[in-house]
Amino acid sequence: MSYQAPLRDMQFVLYELLKGDEILPALPGYEDATRDIMDAMLTEGAKLAQNVIAPTNTNGDRQGCHYDPESKNVTTPDGFKEAYKQFAEAGWTALSAPVEYGGQGMPHTLNTLAEEMMCSANLSLGMYPGLTHGAVNALIGYGTNEQKDYFLPRLISGEWTGTMCLTEPHCGTDLGLIRTKAEPQADGSYAISGTKIWITGGEHDLVDNIIHLVLAKLPDAPGGSKGISLFLVPKVLEDGSRNPAFCGGLEHKMGIKGSATCVMNFEEAKGWLIGEPHKGLQAMFVMMNSARLMVGLQGLGVAEAAYQVSLGFAKDRLQSRSLAGPQAPDKPADPIIVHPDVRRMLLRQKATIEGSRALAYFTALNLDIAHTAEDPAEREHADDMVQLLTPVVKAFLTDEGFFCANDGLQLMGGSGFTQDWPLEQLVRDARITRIYEGTNGIQALDLVGRKIGMNGGRALKRFFAMLDGFINDNPQAPNLPQLKAAIARLQKATMWLMQNGMSDREQAGSAATPYLRLFALTAVGYFWSRMALTAQQQLDAGSSETDFYQAKVHSARFYMDKLLPQTEALLTEIEAGKDSLMEMAVGQF
Amino acid sequence: MSYQAPLRDMQFVLYELLKGDEILPALPGYEDATRDIMDAMLTEGAKLAQNVIAPTNTNGDRQGCHYDPESKNVTTPDGFKEAYKQFAEAGWTALSAPVEYGGQGMPHTLNTLAEEMMCSANLSLGMYPGLTHGAVNALIGYGTNEQKDYFLPRLISGEWTGTMCLTEPHCGTDLGLIRTKAEPQADGSYAISGTKIWITGGEHDLVDNIIHLVLAKLPDAPGGSKGISLFLVPKVLEDGSRNPAFCGGLEHKMGIKGSATCVMNFEEAKGWLIGEPHKGLQAMFVMMNSARLMVGLQGLGVAEAAYQVSLGFAKDRLQSRSLAGPQAPDKPADPIIVHPDVRRMLLRQKATIEGSRALAYFTALNLDIAHTAEDPAEREHADDMVQLLTPVVKAFLTDEGFFCANDGLQLMGGSGFTQDWPLEQLVRDARITRIYEGTNGIQALDLVGRKIGMNGGRALKRFFAMLDGFINDNPQAPNLPQLKAAIARLQKATMWLMQNGMSDREQAGSAATPYLRLFALTAVGYFWSRMALTAQQQLDAGSSETDFYQAKVHSARFYMDKLLPQTEALLTEIEAGKDSLMEMAVGQF
Repeated sequence: MSYQAPLRDMQFVLYELLKGDEILPALPGYEDATRDIMDAMLTEGAKLAQNVIAPTNTNGDRQGCHYDPESKNVTTPDGFKEAYKQFAEAGWTALSAPVEYGGQGMPHTLNTLAEEMMCSANLSLGMYPGLTHGAVNALIGYGTNEQKDYFLPRLISGEWTGTMCLTEPHCGTDLGLIRTKAEPQADGSYAISGTKIWITGGEHDLVDNIIHLVLAKLPDAPGGSKGISLFLVPKVLEDGSRNPAFCGGLEHKMGIKGSATCVMNFEEAKGWLIGEPHKGLQAMFVMMNSARLMVGLQGLGVAEAAYQVSLGFAKDRLQSRSLAGPQAPDKPADPIIVHPDVRRMLLRQKATIEGSRALAYFTALNLDIAHTAEDPAEREHADDMVQLLTPVVKAFLTDEGFFCANDGLQLMGGSGFTQDWPLEQLVRDARITRIYEGTNGIQALDLVGRKIGMNGGRALKRFFAMLDGFINDNPQAPNLPQLKAAIARLQKATMWLMQNGMSDREQAGSAATPYLRLFALTAVGYFWSRMALTAQQQLDAGSSETDFYQAKVHSARFYMDKLLPQTEALLTEIEAGKDSLMEMAVGQF
Repeated sequence: MSYQAPLRDMQFVLYELLKGDEILPALPGYEDATRDIMDAMLTEGAKLAQNVIAPTNTNGDRQGCHYDPESKNVTTPDGFKEAYKQFAEAGWTALSAPVEYGGQGMPHTLNTLAEEMMCSANLSLGMYPGLTHGAVNALIGYGTNEQKDYFLPRLISGEWTGTMCLTEPHCGTDLGLIRTKAEPQADGSYAISGTKIWITGGEHDLVDNIIHLVLAKLPDAPGGSKGISLFLVPKVLEDGSRNPAFCGGLEHKMGIKGSATCVMNFEEAKGWLIGEPHKGLQAMFVMMNSARLMVGLQGLGVAEAAYQVSLGFAKDRLQSRSLAGPQAPDKPADPIIVHPDVRRMLLRQKATIEGSRALAYFTALNLDIAHTAEDPAEREHADDMVQLLTPVVKAFLTDEGFFCANDGLQLMGGSGFTQDWPLEQLVRDARITRIYEGTNGIQALDLVGRKIGMNGGRALKRFFAMLDGFINDNPQAPNLPQLKAAIARLQKATMWLMQNGMSDREQAGSAATPYLRLFALTAVGYFWSRMALTAQQQLDAGSSETDFYQAKVHSARFYMDKLLPQTEALLTEIEAGKDSLMEMAVGQF
């Protein structure tokens, strides 16, 4: 699979749209994140993604991971180990980690851009270091100094990797049901016993040690989700002995076959409490929240890879003549990119990917501001945006990543369905992103059930204020009437939720998924209007990058004309309420 | 995979909604198609699908087909040969074939219902006899008496199978580009040379002989699609010798792995002209049109199978409590079917499948009327419906079949993504139906470019008259305001097309896909309103099948509340016109 990192598009969003090159270096600790340095890093990251990571993707799918029941070891596909080694040695596992533990101390935003590239190049391989981030964040937030000093440098350097062990066979979404036990030991450690499933990178051969972060219950734990604690369980203990945390088998999956998805059996494995007893879920949600942003980026990254391949196909494949008359009269037929319906599928991908990228990078930038800005009000505002937008980024970018990859496959016809092209793998790989780290239905419930009501609706008010501020300040921005109509619909839907969802949680649950989608389409519409304005200003100023900026203006118009109208139907769907969902008795299905 | 044929739902549509048990036996030649006989046959078909065909589906996917480059033979998965044998011996290949050639002479409608069951049970296996139908229809329509007498009984009995050989490496949609040659021979036969790809069942081990229907060009052929002729090329000739029509390899595909998709090399293979020289495309379209209906049924069948599995999962899987308070207080959590968002995904499947089934069976019933009714006006009216609705059935049922199967996978969370459950296979299998027999984009162009303008728009006028007639005659029917609004949108979109698409074909091409979808959603809305009325009448009359009929009323309301509103956005999308699709220069993508 060939992949070209869309550096120019990424720079457009990070610098021209979001002013990341002004905002980031002004944040305490990120003084080095100048445009020159970020550009140099992105260029290196692009080379690595294109030349080292991407070439491992197809074989990773074909060969998959293999489990040896004898040794309980897992072998990753050929080439993964070498590619991972280069990735770690070049410092990418350490990019946004604290300098005091060996990290490079760069902004999370930069890491977000790097992750997008890695996920485009090979989603399966990208997951091993991706999960390690979560373990690092949990340790930084809740570990003791001793734990930090010992584990963090090794995880940050990529010498070891990390996992998140949540799900059990009988519980995924509902973690209150977990049964894994932690018995206190005389030496202050705990004996962890239980079975976890869906453990990404639970066992593999990329590194010598794996640090599991495991949810379990202490003997005196209260019932439900308030009785869960978090433990750190290394595969190999400090004295070099093997901890009894063994892989019991691999899942056979539809996609991401190069990612080892393990059943993990903890057989009185030695572990240490992270944070306070019974407060493990809180620590886990710290990991989950940044993981959710990352999964959104996975959806985006796979969609970008799919778009590039299907665009190349549409330019090369000759089939039928343009409806406006032959465009390539010297050839037996015209390239299919001349056909309106093929353009519809290409532009759906292009406009969705670029608009979603703006939304995702904006959220990542706010994460950096929320963590490091000096002004508490600024931090609070940024954190509000992160809280509000994280479920939106996760759900919308993964739903759309899958749909866009499917559009890419579709426009390639039968070729898209064969293994001769990467599309069918990209579609299969993208499919999981809508499910893990909280299904997209759970993201929607998080948005309507927690985020929009948080602090009296403060985050949502600030979001609307940002949109209104843009419209008021920029009456000359393209496509404003369509954007205004979408915002009005989102406000109407929000009002409906306030009036109906507060008193009846099933009304909120019924509206959740269409509301998240309406929110996302409107948010992306706002970024498209801003991007079109930025591009138009460049064109008006006589920029030499005519094609690049014109494409932004055209894409914005396509988005407003052809995608944003979905908000009409979503509002109607929400306002229809819960009755037609809830009135069917179980026996009538 | 367990599958239960939805006989009660099928009967509801065929008898109670469409009055097939009155209409069919009144057609000349179909006197035997009484309700008793059809019910008996459907019951037998259900048993075969459930007990013989469905058990081969999972292994068919895992094992796939295998090609031996030495012998050029293809081996199908274990169990396919025996299951196919039982299928043929029980008379299912002969169901709707003419009695004079050994067929059972039953209506195509009945065959449509049988096909739905077979496609639910094993899409890959169902394709071998499915393609044979096309060959049978082409021979009936265009073969000489000698050809009919020799080939038809063997194809109809299932002793041999048939193929359709259209696509070549450089041409799929645009058949005018084909290069396969047919050289006239002294004995009246032709020597066929060329390479065809995507040939379903081109080579396999289910039967001893395979009859290929091949598009090729005669030496004096005019250029483009007007120079294509149709030839019959048997694998084994009458004298028992092997015709040089060899499989050159199999495609490695995302799904339908049990279906042998062959590269076929014709090396001066002996063939016979079917129909007139240079008029092969016409004969091929006869095959294609019924094949398109069948592919729609494939989408429906796979979606039904997916719905059944995901519904069972939703009833069994315990996770979290209902938002309205515990529903199963004796259990650790409630079954996930209590959650509104899970119901959204279940009902989307249920309402789409049952509504689409009505649309598809209506089209099949009209096919029988068009072929056999005594009154020419009745035949014409029915044929108008078939012409108009065939691309709609093909595209909408396959798009939605894929989306519905994806909803089934989604509500199962991680389980849906693993091979422990059939969902991931069903999603992969369903994916191809949106592509083959003319991509869904091509179906949409057929609808807007040919079907709605045919005979001065006669078919479309008749379709609207049918909808208006129902509304006028049944002011008490449920959900009429929503249906009327959708019809008004479809009329508005049609007007837009008349005003813009006639003079500018790119406008028609730009509107095609959203127009087909708007059309389909409205047509299915019409059938839901009719079904709800029928069900309400049964409830009012005191039927004992309360749950069954209430479910229809509820499903109709869900459809109107939650799915039909999409028509709003589609109209806006259509009316936005072609500019935002066409203004992007190729180099700006």
